[in-house]
Amino acid sequence: MGNEALLARRFAVLGKHSPLFYDEPLHLVRGDGVWLFDADGNRYLDAYNNVPHVGHCHPRVVRAIAEQAATLNTSTRYLHENVVRYGERLLARFDPALGRVMFCCTGSEANELALRIARECTGNMGVICTAHSYHGNTAAVVQASSFLSTPEQRGRHVRTIPVIDPYREAGDLSEEALAQAYAAEIQRAIDAFEADGVGVAGLLLCSGLSCEGLPDIPAGYLARAVEKVRRAGGVFIADEVQGGFGRFGSHFWGHQRLGVVPDLVTMGKPMGNGHPLAGVVGRTELVDLFAARNPMYFNTFGGNPVSCAAGMAVLDVLEEEGLQENARAVGNYVLDGLRTLRACHEVVGDVRGSGLFFAVELVGDKQAKTPATEVARHVVNEMRRRGVLISRIGVHDNILKIRPPMPFSTAHADQLLATLDDVLGGL
Amino acid sequence: MGNEALLARRFAVLGKHSPLFYDEPLHLVRGDGVWLFDADGNRYLDAYNNVPHVGHCHPRVVRAIAEQAATLNTSTRYLHENVVRYGERLLARFDPALGRVMFCCTGSEANELALRIARECTGNMGVICTAHSYHGNTAAVVQASSFLSTPEQRGRHVRTIPVIDPYREAGDLSEEALAQAYAAEIQRAIDAFEADGVGVAGLLLCSGLSCEGLPDIPAGYLARAVEKVRRAGGVFIADEVQGGFGRFGSHFWGHQRLGVVPDLVTMGKPMGNGHPLAGVVGRTELVDLFAARNPMYFNTFGGNPVSCAAGMAVLDVLEEEGLQENARAVGNYVLDGLRTLRACHEVVGDVRGSGLFFAVELVGDKQAKTPATEVARHVVNEMRRRGVLISRIGVHDNILKIRPPMPFSTAHADQLLATLDDVLGGL
Repeated sequence: MGNEALLARRFAVLGKHSPLFYDEPLHLVRGDGVWLFDADGNRYLDAYNNVPHVGHCHPRVVRAIAEQAATLNTSTRYLHENVVRYGERLLARFDPALGRVMFCCTGSEANELALRIARECTGNMGVICTAHSYHGNTAAVVQASSFLSTPEQRGRHVRTIPVIDPYREAGDLSEEALAQAYAAEIQRAIDAFEADGVGVAGLLLCSGLSCEGLPDIPAGYLARAVEKVRRAGGVFIADEVQGGFGRFGSHFWGHQRLGVVPDLVTMGKPMGNGHPLAGVVGRTELVDLFAARNPMYFNTFGGNPVSCAAGMAVLDVLEEEGLQENARAVGNYVLDGLRTLRACHEVVGDVRGSGLFFAVELVGDKQAKTPATEVARHVVNEMRRRGVLISRIGVHDNILKIRPPMPFSTAHADQLLATLDDVLGGL
Repeated sequence: MGNEALLARRFAVLGKHSPLFYDEPLHLVRGDGVWLFDADGNRYLDAYNNVPHVGHCHPRVVRAIAEQAATLNTSTRYLHENVVRYGERLLARFDPALGRVMFCCTGSEANELALRIARECTGNMGVICTAHSYHGNTAAVVQASSFLSTPEQRGRHVRTIPVIDPYREAGDLSEEALAQAYAAEIQRAIDAFEADGVGVAGLLLCSGLSCEGLPDIPAGYLARAVEKVRRAGGVFIADEVQGGFGRFGSHFWGHQRLGVVPDLVTMGKPMGNGHPLAGVVGRTELVDLFAARNPMYFNTFGGNPVSCAAGMAVLDVLEEEGLQENARAVGNYVLDGLRTLRACHEVVGDVRGSGLFFAVELVGDKQAKTPATEVARHVVNEMRRRGVLISRIGVHDNILKIRPPMPFSTAHADQLLATLDDVLGGL
């Protein structure tokens, strides 16, 4: 069936607003590693999707899902080895203070649960997030997703702090100055809550500032801000839905790169390589307090044997194929290449990266740093036409977002860089 | 590994409060059709789980998941046949006024989304639910789950109506009198909202009153109540998470049995036979209005090719194996058997059923109808020891909840009934 006919049928069942990538939507039929194939047999290098974390259709994950689905799939109201073994393996990846895990199915559910735990355990309602955050699509989480919500929707229980962007801030913002600036913003939010009679439940932050397009923000910026939140009675929730599971190369979790032990950590997208699997890891006493008060808290599909088999297979592949180290090494290789492109192309204002997570900021003028939003849109679509999939992000939607599956090699990097060089050269 | 060692390890990762069935938890290792097997090789008749809707590990569903997982699993931001075909097949099961579907992963997410649509499209916040409802575990949904929330947690935007229980109401409550009583309760809730200055967004109701233990409530009770809600500016959300997909035998959806076309329908548990799959089906203009206002609404895993393959395989099996008709026929057979048990056992106060959904209310005295809560607990555990899995529910937790997978046969029914007869006889 042609794409237009399929699109018309899609509109008839999903409506016209269900989001699609690219001006010319991509009709995919097959995936393999870092490759995607469309209905006409064209091949695309996937330099965007972090859900197929260890590669599209990794045979080990597929086998784990298929075998367990054929054996047993029930809820955690029965005893089963998988949820216990997976829980043990997952917790071994965290600071020992984080001793409990609760499983659910999506990043939205993980952030919902973390907000419930934070609010019920602190007795406070106030949540601080950044001014361009996205944490999911459920009502309470949308309020803390300033990327999509209006101040009216956020109400009096959510306050945002500005995104402090080292590229756009006045010249010499040292790491120390950045840390001070963030701490001051947090203090301002706390003071504003207090003036409103609202207690602070916590700070909810993506560990890679993904929606802000700041994956390489200096590690030190967070510690002092978190200290202020805790002194005000709140907790720190690290959202690892985008950055977790080794993507940053140097560390398995983004919060480890930032040198802070969170009170709660949420995870999702890459966790089951596409199988709907998510979770909250938290300080033992915090999770136990919430669970004691809510003994009927239950997630029907969360932590089921199939989901946990998928999760364990992802950990197996990450370990056996050395994918975190690959993210570090290939990440550096790509970053070098992007810096070369910045030197060659007037439109590339800034290049940032951490492991296999990159932001390429396009500007109309390198001095004025005017956001080149329409150029970014054109580049994303032109890359797609030339067989490389990326997207864009940021306050001005002018930042190329590059976040490939973890088995991305230097050969794949060369194709990405050469295609981007071509597209930028043709502007 | 012994159950006690596994339980200790489970406590260490999930904490002690993660809910488990039965005084002596069941360590399961395998499932097949209506059968579950524990680590010691014991076999159990599953007369409780509605998630493995077409039977545990149905080979057709397993194959669909395995094949699609090996081929492609991406999000709905790309065009794919599966989400379109599944959407078409699903919508064909509804009144034509319900023309759009939005996919997500869990019943909680479906009810979250339905509440968001209802509230954003009506411009009102007030939600009416029953006094013993459960709709999920996210913050907004917990507020409408009076089974778990306190009046303080529900706040001023959620009001409950009493569960009108024909068994416990004074003698001759005709269907007409019941309909009038429900309509009057709805009106009371609407008036109370209005006195508070809160507009009515909608009525959220499980189509089988599952948590109330009233699967056979007379069909006519709902129409007048819904009319009042609509006149007040609200919508009707039918929660089909427990009852949907043919369970009631006479109809594919619970709301069809009740003769009302909802504005929004939520579905989950049985939809993917255990694969995390859920959705909202709604009136075309309502969903389109919400989607136009929230064009970035997106669910990463919702409607992906694997989930939709699982969903289509469930529909295939339901159709090819005639499972809705089986639910009707075997449901009547079980109901007859339960009525015989009621005649023989003083403790069985009432027996109710609709298709393969049964409620057996245990009482200390048939005249006084005193809830036999502890007896119900004992019966559930004793049934488990004798190899038949059921649970309990209801305002007083004294109602045996029997809700087997759909391929339940008369032979399985005979085992269920004989075992229950034995257990009740041994009280």
